[in-house]
Order: sequence, then C-alpha cells, then structure tokens
Amino acid sequence: MKEQIAKRLGIKGLEEKVMTASEAAALIVDGTVVGMSGFTRAGDAKVVPMALVERAKNEQIKIDVYTGASLGPEVDNHLAAAGVINKRGPFQGDRVMRNLINTGEITYVDAHLSHNAELVRQGVIGPIKHAIIEAVAITEDGYLIPTTSVGNSPIFADYAENIIVELNITHPETLIGIHDIYVPGEQGKREPFPITNADQRIGTKGIKIDPAKIQAIVISEEPDAPSLIVPPDEETQKMADQLLEFFQSEIDAGRLTKELMPLQSGVGSVANAVLDGFANSDFENLVVSSEVLQDAVFNLIDAGKVRFAAATSITLTEELQQKVYGNLEAYADKILLRPQEISNHPELIRRLGLISINTALELDIYGNVNSTHVSGTKMMNGIGGSGDFARNARLGIFVTKSYAKGGDVSSIVPMVSHVDHTEHDVDVIVTEQGIADLRGLAPKERVPLIIENCAHPDFKEQLWDYYNRAVEKLGNVQTPHILEEALSWHVNLAENKTMKKEVAK
Amino acid sequence: MKEQIAKRLGIKGLEEKVMTASEAAALIVDGTVVGMSGFTRAGDAKVVPMALVERAKNEQIKIDVYTGASLGPEVDNHLAAAGVINKRGPFQGDRVMRNLINTGEITYVDAHLSHNAELVRQGVIGPIKHAIIEAVAITEDGYLIPTTSVGNSPIFADYAENIIVELNITHPETLIGIHDIYVPGEQGKREPFPITNADQRIGTKGIKIDPAKIQAIVISEEPDAPSLIVPPDEETQKMADQLLEFFQSEIDAGRLTKELMPLQSGVGSVANAVLDGFANSDFENLVVSSEVLQDAVFNLIDAGKVRFAAATSITLTEELQQKVYGNLEAYADKILLRPQEISNHPELIRRLGLISINTALELDIYGNVNSTHVSGTKMMNGIGGSGDFARNARLGIFVTKSYAKGGDVSSIVPMVSHVDHTEHDVDVIVTEQGIADLRGLAPKERVPLIIENCAHPDFKEQLWDYYNRAVEKLGNVQTPHILEEALSWHVNLAENKTMKKEVAK
Repeated sequence: MKEQIAKRLGIKGLEEKVMTASEAAALIVDGTVVGMSGFTRAGDAKVVPMALVERAKNEQIKIDVYTGASLGPEVDNHLAAAGVINKRGPFQGDRVMRNLINTGEITYVDAHLSHNAELVRQGVIGPIKHAIIEAVAITEDGYLIPTTSVGNSPIFADYAENIIVELNITHPETLIGIHDIYVPGEQGKREPFPITNADQRIGTKGIKIDPAKIQAIVISEEPDAPSLIVPPDEETQKMADQLLEFFQSEIDAGRLTKELMPLQSGVGSVANAVLDGFANSDFENLVVSSEVLQDAVFNLIDAGKVRFAAATSITLTEELQQKVYGNLEAYADKILLRPQEISNHPELIRRLGLISINTALELDIYGNVNSTHVSGTKMMNGIGGSGDFARNARLGIFVTKSYAKGGDVSSIVPMVSHVDHTEHDVDVIVTEQGIADLRGLAPKERVPLIIENCAHPDFKEQLWDYYNRAVEKLGNVQTPHILEEALSWHVNLAENKTMKKEVAK
Repeated sequence: MKEQIAKRLGIKGLEEKVMTASEAAALIVDGTVVGMSGFTRAGDAKVVPMALVERAKNEQIKIDVYTGASLGPEVDNHLAAAGVINKRGPFQGDRVMRNLINTGEITYVDAHLSHNAELVRQGVIGPIKHAIIEAVAITEDGYLIPTTSVGNSPIFADYAENIIVELNITHPETLIGIHDIYVPGEQGKREPFPITNADQRIGTKGIKIDPAKIQAIVISEEPDAPSLIVPPDEETQKMADQLLEFFQSEIDAGRLTKELMPLQSGVGSVANAVLDGFANSDFENLVVSSEVLQDAVFNLIDAGKVRFAAATSITLTEELQQKVYGNLEAYADKILLRPQEISNHPELIRRLGLISINTALELDIYGNVNSTHVSGTKMMNGIGGSGDFARNARLGIFVTKSYAKGGDVSSIVPMVSHVDHTEHDVDVIVTEQGIADLRGLAPKERVPLIIENCAHPDFKEQLWDYYNRAVEKLGNVQTPHILEEALSWHVNLAENKTMKKEVAK
C-alpha cells in the first residue's frame, strides 16, 4: 500500500502530510465553511467526515457544508445525524438530512447547481476554511486529480484557505485523463468557453493546486456509495416509449435528426429508464451532455448508441461500478467529467441546444412545475440542475407519473404548491398517460393538453371542473384560477389523505 | 422627399417596390404569422399596421403577431382593438391589448424575450409569412438598417417568406452605424459569441437581406410613440438612494468596484429613477448592458457617468427624443443596439456579470416574485426580459413599492399568486421601506429581512402573524405555509377591496 500511495503522490514532501482521518478531522475549525467534493454520491469525501462524526461525540462542532450536489451517507446521513451540519447547500437527497432540514435543525440553501461557484467567486459563500476533496492522485506537475465527480471541487480548492485530500486508492488510476477542468475567470474579465461540441476538451487533466495549501492527506479505500436507481416498471417504460415516439415525430417534422441533440437527463430511476429506452431505438450517434452519467449511459455506449458522454459525475449501481471501473480504458475516450459550473452552464446548454429531461414532483394545468417541496412546505431533495437545464435547453422536458401514494395524489393539480420551473420554462410534459407538447402555447391552450394527455383518469373530471368553474367565475382571463380553491387539493390531502374530491365533501 | 427616399434605397430596382401603406396592407395574408419590428414602443412598424386597421373595417382578417417586445399604439392598441390579432407574443404593455387578452379575445404567449428567436429557428414559431420591419435605409451592400430598436427583426427577416419594409424618413440617417447585428447559427453548430465587453461590436451594421424577398416598401414619417415614464416621486427616489447605498456597501465589502458591473434596468419609471440616481453618485465609468436605453441613460452619458450603453432599443420621452435624435453624432460612439437574443442572452449576461434591476408586481416572504399576473389571474404586461436577466445576473435585484392601491394592497404577501421568478433567482429586494439582501440565505432566513426591511408598516404584523402561525402549525419545515390561507390576502382583496385583515373579519 505504501508503494501505491507514493505512486499517487507525485509531489515530493507531500507524504509528510499523510495522516489519519481522525487527525485530519481534528484540524477542522468549528464554525467555519467547508467545501466538500462529491456529486450525487460520487467522488465525495468519506473518511474525514466519518472521523468528524466520531469527534462530534465528545465535542460540540458545527460547520457549513457546501458540495457539488448530494453526497453519500457519510455526510448527508451520518454527519447530519451527528448534529455537525449547520448550513447545507446546494443539494441533498438523503432521508435523514431531509428530516433534519424539515425540523429546522439544518439550514438548507437549495440552489441552481451552476450558481454556487459564482457565489464563491463573488465572496457571497465563504470564506471557505477547508476544502475536503477526494482525489485519485496528485501529479508531479501539481494537479489534484478528482475521482468520480468534479462538482465544485475546483472552485473550493481555489478559494479554500487549506485543502484536505482524501487520497482514494480504491478508485482506479485509470480515472486520470477523464477529467476536463476549466475554471472561468472573474465575471467581466472572462473569455467565452471555447466549447462548441459536447466531446470537446478545453481544460486540464486535474485541478491545479498550490501544494502549500494542502493541510492533510488521508488515505481512503472507501468506494462510492452505489446509486439507488431501480429498474423501470411498466409505467416508467411507457414514459420512455412515449418520449422516443415524440423524438421520432420531431424528426418527421424536420426539427431534429436521428442524432437528436445532446441529451441531459436528471438523476433517478425514471430518467435512467428513459435513457435505457434508447437501446432499442433507431436513434444513433447520440451524445450525452449532462450532470450525471448513470448506468443507462454506459449500457448505451456498449450498445454503440451513445458515441460520447460528458457530465460532472458518474453514479452507478454496484453492478455497473464493477463493470465500468474494472474496465475504464474501454470508456476513456468516450467520456469526460467537467466542473458543474461548466456542465450546467447556460452558455454551454444553449449553445449546444440540449434536450433536457428532468423529474417533476407535481405540475399544474398551466405548466408550472414543483420539483422540490412536498405540498409546498417540506423539502424533498432540491432543484439541483433542473433549472439550469430546463430554461436553457432547446427542449425542456419534465417527466412524472400522473399519480402518487397509490392513487390518492394527483401529480397534476390546479395550482402547484411551490414553483421551481415557471410556465415559461416547461416545453413538454410526459406521464405514463401521455405527452403534452406545450411549446408556443398560451396558458389556456395548455390546459386541455395537460389534462387530457397527462392527468390520471381518476382526476381528469375534477381538474376540468376546477378549470371550468374558474373560467365561469373570472371569464377568459390569461390564467383562470379560483384562489380560494387553488391549493385545496393539497389541503384535502393533508386532512383526508387524498386529493379526491368525494372524500373532501 | 423623392430624393431622400432614393438616397435611402441603396439597391437598384427597389424603388419599384415602393407602394402605399394600404397597398402593402392588402398583401398581408389572412391567418398567417407576421413578425414585426419594435421593442418597447421604439422602431416598430406603424403605417402598415394602421392601414391594416382600415382594411379590417371591410374584411375579416386575423393574424398572429410576434414582435421584439411591446409596440406603440398602432399595433398593441389600434390593431388589437380592430380584432386583427389572433395570437400575440412575446410581450405587450398596452391597456387595450391587456383587456383583450384578459377577455380571451387575444391569445397571449408571454415568454422570455431571449427565447423567441430560438423558437423561430427551431420551427416552433412559424412559418412566418411576412416580416414588417421599420428601417432607416437599405444600403447598397444589401443591409437593411433598423431604426431605434433591433429586437427580433434579424430572425424575422431571415425566416419570413417576404419582407415589408417601412422606410422611415423621419428617423435620422445618423442611426446608420449604431447597430451591431450578430445572428447566432443553429444550435450545435454555433460558435461562442465573441463578446467580452459590453462595448464590443461583433456583427454587421445592419440586417443582411435577400432583396428578392422584399415584397413592399412603404414610406413612413411617423415618429416613435414617446415613452410613458414619469419623473421620480419621493418614494422611487428613496428606492434609488437605498440601492446606491447598497452598491457602496458592496464596494466597501470588496465585492464591487466604483465602476460596478454592467447595468441592466427594466423598463419603467422606477428603473429610470434608479438610474437617474447615479448622476449624483460617486460611481464612475459606468457601462450599461440592457434591453432598453431610457432617458436616464442619455442623461448619465451627458453627465460623464456612463461611458458606454448597449441595448436592443432606445425608448425616450418626447423631450429626450428631440435632444438625442437631433444630435445623434454626439452619442454614436457611446451606444449600440443588438438583437434582443444577444442583449438578453444568458451567455452574455453571465459572462459580463451584470447587475440587473427589474420591477416586481408582488413578492412573498420567501422571495418568490410575481411580475405578470394581477392576483394570479389577469395579465398585466408580461415577464419580458426579467427572467433572462435575473437568473443569470451577478446581482438580480427586484424593486417595487411596498404597497399599491393607496395602501390597501401589500406588495409583500404570504405567497405570491403567480411565480415568474423563483426564490432561487432573487438576490436583492428594494422597496421604499428598505432593502433585503437575500444572497446565500435559506427561505426561513429571508423572512425577517423581507418583512422587517421591505414590507409596509401597515402589513408587518399581519405578515409575521401568518408566518408564526405557519411555523406553529407545521414546525420549522423548509418553507412554512398555511395552504388554506396562503392566498387569502388576494381573496380578501377581491371580496373587500383590501388586503388588511381587520376588514376580512
């Protein structure tokens, strides 16, 4: 193991900074802001946070934790449960942390994933005392090589007072070379990003660091927590099929070609199922330009469907982890990982003309989407990159099952209880019931498409009844609503455990 | 006059296409999509639409009208009142049109102003039968030179089957040279916009056209409808002063310099007053990168405060029209007009790090902003460019008086009745009461700042009462709301003409 470590520490003298996780955790200053690597359970700091959990058993310590996105259980579960996290941003997806957010024990700043780096640069987030970054190596020429995600690590490394490196020797060295680190300059002094194709490299192989800033190096052998996606069920399969049909109809209309446009798909089982659907499609030479590369992307590369995939993170199930990381050479020229402020940057998304597929929690008859708040009040995960992508994409698509809670909840409501994506930003909606193409339509024109094509049959009549009474009351105003009733479906749910009206009476 | 016309028609043979407005209006095909020049009452088609109003007196004709933004009375008032407009996008600001939108006679697609050109390019808006574009000249080398706005004219000219030119000989020829026309290519084949400074020219002096597509040239002598801004009152002055103090505090904190960052300010009296405030400030060498150049910008150029101003339109009061257009040479090297998809493009806004100031109709205690819908149902004007700017700006600022309707309406409510800008996109709020800096804060952290600093004293207690009862009911969830009551202030207003609670009881 010593040899392996020496091999991965290219700069002389760095071996003197190697210490145990507890020793490194002891360096973390109470009350400070800490930036950690990690994006969707991949490439996250692991052993130092767990040592911090231990430290917190004997000592009161609170820190603000900013990351790329959601981390594995070490931080968003154990560190949160240990009471160490004061403030958290910009995204999480953990059951324990979610509960602590919704009891107010953790202050959560849910934000567009492309925005945090700018806030660090502007001095709004910070000063950052420590950056804790998982690395696969530090090279002779002074680059810290991230592991399975890049996230916000470059900006954290740049702005942190000091850096704690988790040198992870379980991650294969073949990861070296898949990263493309490009850090924009100050606003107003910045050049255009020279990316004109998703497969283009514009940066360096790693994060250029000042070795003097390295405070500690901790050896880690912890693998990434595996992704939690589940195989498609009949309904997610239906959604995937419909979306593929829609793409075909866009080709027929001359608006797309068989290569489509670079694809972004949100994290989770539905998005993964949609991508899986491409395996049996006529589409070819596909390119992915996304946040996260999930299992489906690698299966599509194997199937010869996807020719290149760029993102900021690789999040795989255990099975795919073995397959991909055991044979990374085979994928090395077909994937790359960028910082999240590049993968999610409006400049990139709009220039390349992405097709963006994200998950809605609920949506309303006018096309507004709630991605974050259960019944408008409780945080689920966060907006993540969906806002970066949906507004700037060539095609902003939202997918959701038309119902939840065994049929008591309609995902389509008169008025969403929280808005993350406004009616101006939602192009296409897909449920297992059907698809609504809202492009170029006014709010009232969207209503029949959303209700008839996308709502669950159990709720169609009730939705029409609301809309028709709203028009009766106010006339054909731009957006008819009965404000007294607009959120009554959610109230009914809280009181009677269903959105169905019969029960409300 | 003949000489003047000949001088402005550089291409031989074009004089044969000169016809009367009625003759040109007769060419417009019923049931088609028409793209018109014009942005905020500037550079809009005027005489042909008025001739179309005449034609409609004897004949049923309906067209879809897409423009840059709001037009003067010829289209958004008279043409609308004549029943000629079926669908309208992406923005309007006229009393008559607004009423027709809210009775359902006109279908209105309110959209981000940077998005329409992409939709034309993608084939979602179209096919465009006619582009009606006001021009100051057509040059020998084949450029159509727009007048006082560029807006969407380049994309309309490019995609329209034919072009009707309103050659406006009242606009001075000195306008030639102030435009900078750059049209992005297809998504996926597009280069980065090479703009790294707001004063940089990257395009051509006019819109390159195929002369064969010119269907008609109509001579016009109609000036632009003057802008409707009113001088600042005591309260808008207060808002301006506070904003200037805020900028000073950002300089003190090391986050800005005396040159600030390029400024964008929305259309209207408040935004104009805020800009006017810079005249007596210590800020210097300012740059404007906005949608519309209003009176204040030219006053600031005269005062030596603004060194350059770029936008897509110049909208002036009658007084300033005379001053500026009578002496355009003095401003020629200090201003430029771009297409709106460039002036409002996320790529430009984020790269340059704009400070963006826009008007809110209402906002809520968590920082969500409604810019468009009165009580969530009736369209006021439209979102315009506020979404383009607010999300991508370095500093996204919203201004509004804390009250309306003589004090019966609070501009700050428990929950906005329509969301145009989500809590993720609102950095700073300014009312005549004070300022709330929301950057980096979680929803519950924003509440005291918004209520204490920005709400009108008449409503503070009532807002706190709502919030405290929401927390009491649900605990410290991410975003406490009492859904039964969240929109009750608007309901109260509809029923009792006030948002004050005493009356509701």
